[in-house]
Amino acid sequence: MLMKTQKVAVVGASGYSGEELVRLLLSHPHVELAAVTSRQYAGQSLAQVFPKFAHHPRARGLHFSEPKHELLAKQAEVVFLALPHGVAAEFAKPLLDAGCRVIDLSADFRLKNAGTYREFYGHEHPAPDLLAQSVYGMPEIRRAEIAKAALVASPGCYPTSILLPLYPLLKAGLVHQNGIIADSLSGVSGAGRKPELDYLFVECNESVRPYGVPRHRHISEIEQELAAAAERPVTIQFTPHLIPVNRGILTTLYLDPAKEFQGGRLKEFEQKVASCFQAAYGQEPFIRLLNDKNLPDTKNVVGTNVLELAWRLDPRTERLLLFSAEDNLVKGASGQAIQSLNLMCGWPETAGLL
Amino acid sequence: MLMKTQKVAVVGASGYSGEELVRLLLSHPHVELAAVTSRQYAGQSLAQVFPKFAHHPRARGLHFSEPKHELLAKQAEVVFLALPHGVAAEFAKPLLDAGCRVIDLSADFRLKNAGTYREFYGHEHPAPDLLAQSVYGMPEIRRAEIAKAALVASPGCYPTSILLPLYPLLKAGLVHQNGIIADSLSGVSGAGRKPELDYLFVECNESVRPYGVPRHRHISEIEQELAAAAERPVTIQFTPHLIPVNRGILTTLYLDPAKEFQGGRLKEFEQKVASCFQAAYGQEPFIRLLNDKNLPDTKNVVGTNVLELAWRLDPRTERLLLFSAEDNLVKGASGQAIQSLNLMCGWPETAGLL
Amino acid sequence: MLMKTQKVAVVGASGYSGEELVRLLLSHPHVELAAVTSRQYAGQSLAQVFPKFAHHPRARGLHFSEPKHELLAKQAEVVFLALPHGVAAEFAKPLLDAGCRVIDLSADFRLKNAGTYREFYGHEHPAPDLLAQSVYGMPEIRRAEIAKAALVASPGCYPTSILLPLYPLLKAGLVHQNGIIADSLSGVSGAGRKPELDYLFVECNESVRPYGVPRHRHISEIEQELAAAAERPVTIQFTPHLIPVNRGILTTLYLDPAKEFQGGRLKEFEQKVASCFQAAYGQEPFIRLLNDKNLPDTKNVVGTNVLELAWRLDPRTERLLLFSAEDNLVKGASGQAIQSLNLMCGWPETAGLL
Amino acid sequence: MLMKTQKVAVVGASGYSGEELVRLLLSHPHVELAAVTSRQYAGQSLAQVFPKFAHHPRARGLHFSEPKHELLAKQAEVVFLALPHGVAAEFAKPLLDAGCRVIDLSADFRLKNAGTYREFYGHEHPAPDLLAQSVYGMPEIRRAEIAKAALVASPGCYPTSILLPLYPLLKAGLVHQNGIIADSLSGVSGAGRKPELDYLFVECNESVRPYGVPRHRHISEIEQELAAAAERPVTIQFTPHLIPVNRGILTTLYLDPAKEFQGGRLKEFEQKVASCFQAAYGQEPFIRLLNDKNLPDTKNVVGTNVLELAWRLDPRTERLLLFSAEDNLVKGASGQAIQSLNLMCGWPETAGLL
Repeated sequence: MLMKTQKVAVVGASGYSGEELVRLLLSHPHVELAAVTSRQYAGQSLAQVFPKFAHHPRARGLHFSEPKHELLAKQAEVVFLALPHGVAAEFAKPLLDAGCRVIDLSADFRLKNAGTYREFYGHEHPAPDLLAQSVYGMPEIRRAEIAKAALVASPGCYPTSILLPLYPLLKAGLVHQNGIIADSLSGVSGAGRKPELDYLFVECNESVRPYGVPRHRHISEIEQELAAAAERPVTIQFTPHLIPVNRGILTTLYLDPAKEFQGGRLKEFEQKVASCFQAAYGQEPFIRLLNDKNLPDTKNVVGTNVLELAWRLDPRTERLLLFSAEDNLVKGASGQAIQSLNLMCGWPETAGLL
Repeated sequence: MLMKTQKVAVVGASGYSGEELVRLLLSHPHVELAAVTSRQYAGQSLAQVFPKFAHHPRARGLHFSEPKHELLAKQAEVVFLALPHGVAAEFAKPLLDAGCRVIDLSADFRLKNAGTYREFYGHEHPAPDLLAQSVYGMPEIRRAEIAKAALVASPGCYPTSILLPLYPLLKAGLVHQNGIIADSLSGVSGAGRKPELDYLFVECNESVRPYGVPRHRHISEIEQELAAAAERPVTIQFTPHLIPVNRGILTTLYLDPAKEFQGGRLKEFEQKVASCFQAAYGQEPFIRLLNDKNLPDTKNVVGTNVLELAWRLDPRTERLLLFSAEDNLVKGASGQAIQSLNLMCGWPETAGLL
Repeated sequence: MLMKTQKVAVVGASGYSGEELVRLLLSHPHVELAAVTSRQYAGQSLAQVFPKFAHHPRARGLHFSEPKHELLAKQAEVVFLALPHGVAAEFAKPLLDAGCRVIDLSADFRLKNAGTYREFYGHEHPAPDLLAQSVYGMPEIRRAEIAKAALVASPGCYPTSILLPLYPLLKAGLVHQNGIIADSLSGVSGAGRKPELDYLFVECNESVRPYGVPRHRHISEIEQELAAAAERPVTIQFTPHLIPVNRGILTTLYLDPAKEFQGGRLKEFEQKVASCFQAAYGQEPFIRLLNDKNLPDTKNVVGTNVLELAWRLDPRTERLLLFSAEDNLVKGASGQAIQSLNLMCGWPETAGLL
Repeated sequence: MLMKTQKVAVVGASGYSGEELVRLLLSHPHVELAAVTSRQYAGQSLAQVFPKFAHHPRARGLHFSEPKHELLAKQAEVVFLALPHGVAAEFAKPLLDAGCRVIDLSADFRLKNAGTYREFYGHEHPAPDLLAQSVYGMPEIRRAEIAKAALVASPGCYPTSILLPLYPLLKAGLVHQNGIIADSLSGVSGAGRKPELDYLFVECNESVRPYGVPRHRHISEIEQELAAAAERPVTIQFTPHLIPVNRGILTTLYLDPAKEFQGGRLKEFEQKVASCFQAAYGQEPFIRLLNDKNLPDTKNVVGTNVLELAWRLDPRTERLLLFSAEDNLVKGASGQAIQSLNLMCGWPETAGLL
């Protein structure tokens, strides 16, 4: 089958997520990378800013341009926005009006409720009328909706590592919707490519620290999606930590079995958890269920679009533990966004990602 | 006041904890480091094995010897055992019989119950008759007992990072004794100085992974001590993770307020927690209560005997979070053991540790 | 053009070079990975030993087998040997006799002189009769010979980083063949996947150290190849250092201009150096000449088969400095070996490597 | 002997060198740390900015103040300047006029020649009249001068690692003064505590790169001091590299034996080198001569004021290699400055440094 090539642009291509998008799109079999923009580097070639792309045949001639939506709408059929929240929304509207499809990697279109956005992001939503049409771009959960969407809100890195393990269990009613704890460890690229003292090598190396507790912004989209799975409100505890690796998120989740399994039915619960994961993800190309003794390790997924997932029932505490590992820049950002692109364009979902 | 110098020996001085003991004892104002033993390096000078000690005036002439209790008993008044569990107990008995005081850094004398030891360590306790007289060497909790002890069982690294934050709250009945979760991140030195594939640089660098779940051996001593604080059985959830730093443990604890505070009295609870920590640790030389916006960071404690401690009440989940940071080899091992030494010898508790 | 697929085996696939070979071959468009062997892991699946390969469609069903040349000769047309020196030669002979083509990543067939081998490797060469037919597999230098070879000796990691910058300058007679200094910095994967104390995370992290001076084994192949370029004997100074990164070699080279340029003709010399590199490597797909202000950085080449190369003339010392950066496991080992495979099979040289 | 305590101030105490000065001075037995200044943090307590000092008894009450020389002159008898070059000179003059003794850690008073300063630092020297009285503060070389100095220019980190190995050999005429190459590897703290993109964790971790070639500013002071040793002009080649460790400099030096030893007298040369180092440094408290098989390793010196030094004669190239390792912030900056303080105040040279 001959696939139609699509022209694609990346707005905000000089941050870590943008750079990773460029890396993946340069090797994508059905994509022509038509434009990359960056206020800071406008006029410079892609290879000057990122020498590692200099050798890619398709990088030749690519230069960073100023981000202008009129021009982008002429250059590309699909536009990725790798911009800070607040700014992304300003680009989305005119691009959609001009007929582009938009995949936004910021938080601007992830929340369905503009009030929740204001509460967690501290300013009014810049384009609340678009919230209804945006689709939360988690392919394993919303494949069909993504395929038809004009505006995809690609999930955050922490939410991906938390939602994928939790979603099927909550949907199946196997675990209690209350009392969920998500303890996450993230590499420093999650903080972005910004010259701030806190993220200097010397400040991060040989350092481990929690931050953003108890109310990190990502809680808002996590609870929205978990509520959709559980069909009732869900409140979670989320604690992010910064650790000295470039990439990778490791999340440990603590859950209580649903009431019906508490007491004597833990064996049955354990089997149902295994079956539930197998049914939900056994055939998923980017979720690796660790059915054996292994536990997730970020080094097994860094550079890939795979999320590793393992679970353990603790008979002493009667609690279920889930563990996930992902590359925060790939499955947690750019890779997942390309999964959505593939769905939107009718290409194999794994195109450019294996 | 003129302090009497004590002759001290370190058995098993070539592991990471032993090395750190030697580092601290070489600079201790009241200690004469009389002997260091190592099966592997017997005959070599301290400076040959650890070049960094070569420049210390008091390291001159020190050679590793074979560990022989008859000789040690003649050389030293206090003996530190930095040996694997099982082996430590074999040395403790004859040394105690010969009149030495013993500070054991292994797990051999931490548990009061030989059955629990068998359950968690997989073999019979080698000297169960000594369990009754050993004192769990956590100075902030058992200062008086340690001062009089002949046999001190110095706590494990994870337990220290978990017990110090929890102990006063459980003792004061401020938090629920059930449902406690301890999520810990440890540097690689915690795995010891053993040539194993899993701890090679390439296997640990750019890697984050949980391990030893759900039943790490340290749970046994943690629950024993927490039960002593709560005056009732306590079952905890404990998840250790390995992260690519040399040293440091960061522990995040999740707790429920005691029943009486649930519902409308969270403000009061928060104040009582702050007061409780202030009363328990406000004057402690090695516990730093972070009363401001700061959260613990291992880089602030590495190389010191200080444990950083912070707490946050989450109004959304009505849960209390505690955070602690320590150097696993100092406050989590050798530094804490020297605190016990200071107490046993009647020296200032901070001698050699500031 | 339809390319014929070749069946390929990797002997010794559980070391770091072997693992990287497997990673690259699994994605190679013209290769069928027919067998992977490992004494240590025989019987286990590829995915059990390296979870990161579990998701690759072509990894399914692959199991490590015991390395047996009779079987290998039936399974594969081309065999990669990723074995320790001395052992590799034992496999090469029967495989060649059975009609396989062999690409050896060890040092066994790199030296033309069995006496030099004995001198540098400390034992008799196990198959000296094969030395005459082996080809030193540096594609940029010996493309035509490699294409026809039955036995390719793929270069060492340090030699690649040193030879590629030096070769064209010596061949053109632009620099003095005496007094060359190569100062190299290598990531820890260069030491192999062996459980040794020196390569533990804690021993390498926050450590920088020279080793193997003044007579590292790689000097033998470096001098052999430089002599071929200069058409006279060359003696070099080579100092390797171990630095705490997983991958990457950065080499700094110090050279004197040829006598004719010393004194007043440095400007001309500088231009000739630039022209020489442009002529030699301007069209090479895997050598990136940095003509601008940039200097090589290992992070720009890690994971790729590219070697970055820059040069600076120091007018104060009248010395030429060359800088190269490569991934020691790709361009310095497995990637370069696959370049040879591509040449041997008549495929595009970049197949599976971009 | 009762030592008189001196009041000491640190100007620019919030950079990495300043922080390290504070760490060492807080534990110095004869120093009262009377003032610490920082434009950025003026008004904040030392413990707020550097939580790790919060537990030091002598840190209590210390607050950062605005740097004002009138006030400093009243508060302190000795003032350390840990400021950028250019700025330091502005403080030195009024402080000296007010009778303070000044130890400057910047480059402002290291060069005797204001023209060389202009050439290497790109601006006119701000206080050229002070150059004649300043003493280059390398205690092992200029002990007596430092003791009497009012203004000490403490050496740079790279120069320390290069000068200490070279000085005695050049002074003794054992090595050729031409053709010296210094290849240095530095941890990231050497770049200072500045929020710049190049020094972000993600940009430095898993990266190795040369920089500042071929004319790094430190060359000027290195050549000045080497010329003093050799009693003739010396031109060196110096290549710094950035490597992903917090602290530590490893320098490899390449030298030619003096003419008289070339040809057949290498054995004699080797013995003279060993004797020369033994005579020069055998009794030095902060230089560790590695006479055995060991080579320097930064992890053996980090956190200490010790410089490790080893040498190898390469019989193949007839070249002498020297290797040194130091902590760039201690022996390469703050520790060495305190050595000077000790000399200036008549205290034991090791006070506060062992």
